[in-house]
Amino acid sequence: MPELRKDPIVGRWVIISTERSKRPSDFTHGGTPRKGGPCVFCPGMEHLTPPEVLSYRETGSQPDAAGWRIRAVPNKFPALRVEGPMGRRGEGLYDLMNGVGAHEVVIDSVDHDRGMADLEPTQIEEVLWAYRDRVLDLSKDERLRYLLVFKNHGAEAGASLEHPHSQLIALPIVPLSVQQELKGARDYFALKERCIFCDIVDQESGDRRRMIFENDGFIVTTPFASRFPFELWVLPKNHGSHFEHAGSREYKLLAQALKAGLQGLKRALDDPPFNYIIHSAPLREPQSKHYHWHLEITPALTKVAGFEVGTGFYINPMPPEDAAAHLRPVVNGEETVELRVANAS
Amino acid sequence: MPELRKDPIVGRWVIISTERSKRPSDFTHGGTPRKGGPCVFCPGMEHLTPPEVLSYRETGSQPDAAGWRIRAVPNKFPALRVEGPMGRRGEGLYDLMNGVGAHEVVIDSVDHDRGMADLEPTQIEEVLWAYRDRVLDLSKDERLRYLLVFKNHGAEAGASLEHPHSQLIALPIVPLSVQQELKGARDYFALKERCIFCDIVDQESGDRRRMIFENDGFIVTTPFASRFPFELWVLPKNHGSHFEHAGSREYKLLAQALKAGLQGLKRALDDPPFNYIIHSAPLREPQSKHYHWHLEITPALTKVAGFEVGTGFYINPMPPEDAAAHLRPVVNGEETVELRVANAS
Repeated sequence: MPELRKDPIVGRWVIISTERSKRPSDFTHGGTPRKGGPCVFCPGMEHLTPPEVLSYRETGSQPDAAGWRIRAVPNKFPALRVEGPMGRRGEGLYDLMNGVGAHEVVIDSVDHDRGMADLEPTQIEEVLWAYRDRVLDLSKDERLRYLLVFKNHGAEAGASLEHPHSQLIALPIVPLSVQQELKGARDYFALKERCIFCDIVDQESGDRRRMIFENDGFIVTTPFASRFPFELWVLPKNHGSHFEHAGSREYKLLAQALKAGLQGLKRALDDPPFNYIIHSAPLREPQSKHYHWHLEITPALTKVAGFEVGTGFYINPMPPEDAAAHLRPVVNGEETVELRVANAS
Repeated sequence: MPELRKDPIVGRWVIISTERSKRPSDFTHGGTPRKGGPCVFCPGMEHLTPPEVLSYRETGSQPDAAGWRIRAVPNKFPALRVEGPMGRRGEGLYDLMNGVGAHEVVIDSVDHDRGMADLEPTQIEEVLWAYRDRVLDLSKDERLRYLLVFKNHGAEAGASLEHPHSQLIALPIVPLSVQQELKGARDYFALKERCIFCDIVDQESGDRRRMIFENDGFIVTTPFASRFPFELWVLPKNHGSHFEHAGSREYKLLAQALKAGLQGLKRALDDPPFNYIIHSAPLREPQSKHYHWHLEITPALTKVAGFEVGTGFYINPMPPEDAAAHLRPVVNGEETVELRVANAS
């Protein structure tokens, strides 16, 4: 059984996957995803994944067989397990519990070679619906308190399989950085009686130096205090604390905004590795006026060293205003940035 | 002038180095350090660095010439600058200030090819003295509130030059994660009237499952909630809040403990990339009963994805008890772990 252990000083929970213990030699050279299809996520290979927990598929087609557009399956090597008791306990001054939770994969499309940026907006919209459906289903388990929805694209961003997919990790705790974000938003609301994210949307919409895309529902902007070159935030214009309670119009507009942001990165930066994470309020918490769900995209262009991880302190060599100036024409079809050959040196 | 910008939600400060703005093409493939000496940090090349701010050298030898054992020089491409006003200001809801601070390099030894793990303990001790001397000198500048002392070893850990060196970044703010650590330690003290780090030293000294090395002054242990495989903490047995106020006996014993930890990693894991960071109380703060300086070593064996950075939530496939069991015999001269050929696959 994996364990959730809490750092006694800062309160950070860590998953220690005791079952997957490795030998030191497993760490001496990193693996890279296998290139080219077909793979376990490709149509016709459904028998190689655990049975699906969700699929959007052709009428009349069978579960775990071809005919799907999107599938969600439990992770074959889950970091957490749904079964078993919570087992909260102490060990001297330390706190730990069993690694109770869920770890699932959403296969974004049947196409092994098309990343999220290249999917049709309707397909991206369906991926967002799949996220929502899984969040709502998993939130029925009262033990689970937070659901991380994220994508790793490219080996450098931690993707271990090439076929485009997203991941969901359902946790019995709220991650430290989410707690910090919730606290920051609550403190701001206490001071101003306004949502800080709504204020950011207002300011960025007026300023426009960091804006790269806008539609009726969303803005895509490089954040003022960007940690990483070309970091992007996709912020809903309408206030809402939970991703899973957004409406169908919002998923349609989010699909468009997300595609714009990802296409911008892909074309300006030669298909860079990236991660995105949906930031949303904890499961089953009531709608709040102070927290505002959104999506953060972080290209993995610079090495994140232990220095940054250890200190939470970032040095970003690319001002977000300059990053936005590079991306804006690419996103809006006025390409002035030369496209580059992959891995040319 | 570089800028320090504050994330309005969580309060994280980020350096935006506006002067070093890069073109997108600079991000499409990472650089690797040049292999082999002599380099700008080698003896005889002193004219290629900014003038030294400290050196330990042979009697009679001249500054910025050969004859040194350790040199400290300003970083040629500093992330922050000592000159100029603080310029604290707002921009709508955002806060920023000028990138006032210092960024220095400590050249650990004259030897291009010997990493910290292979230096003699007396040389490591001198490196620690150099850190201390620079911290004390920089802390005279009342604008500076925190000093990060760290080492990046290996390209994968962010080192851009091969010649072994350490870095110092002096900041006009206290990094978020340091604030969290200070707060956690203060809260624990309020509850228990004991230092949490002293309690950790006690518990690990009794338990021993995570201990890999111990001398009269320090323990080297894998932390209970390790974020990374083979993460190591070097903890002083005697309470003290500031690294720079440790005594000469402690630097001697720390040099021994640090060498043991780094040798263990090097031999068990085939000279892995790593970072270490000294965690110390803010500059000029009075000695405190609740905070306890220490050094954290994080091998860069797994990719730190945006997921981990974005959530502060880590999945560690190597239980710290197993990591310690692998390292202990290597450190203590009973090698049961086979050594491996570099980059063999």
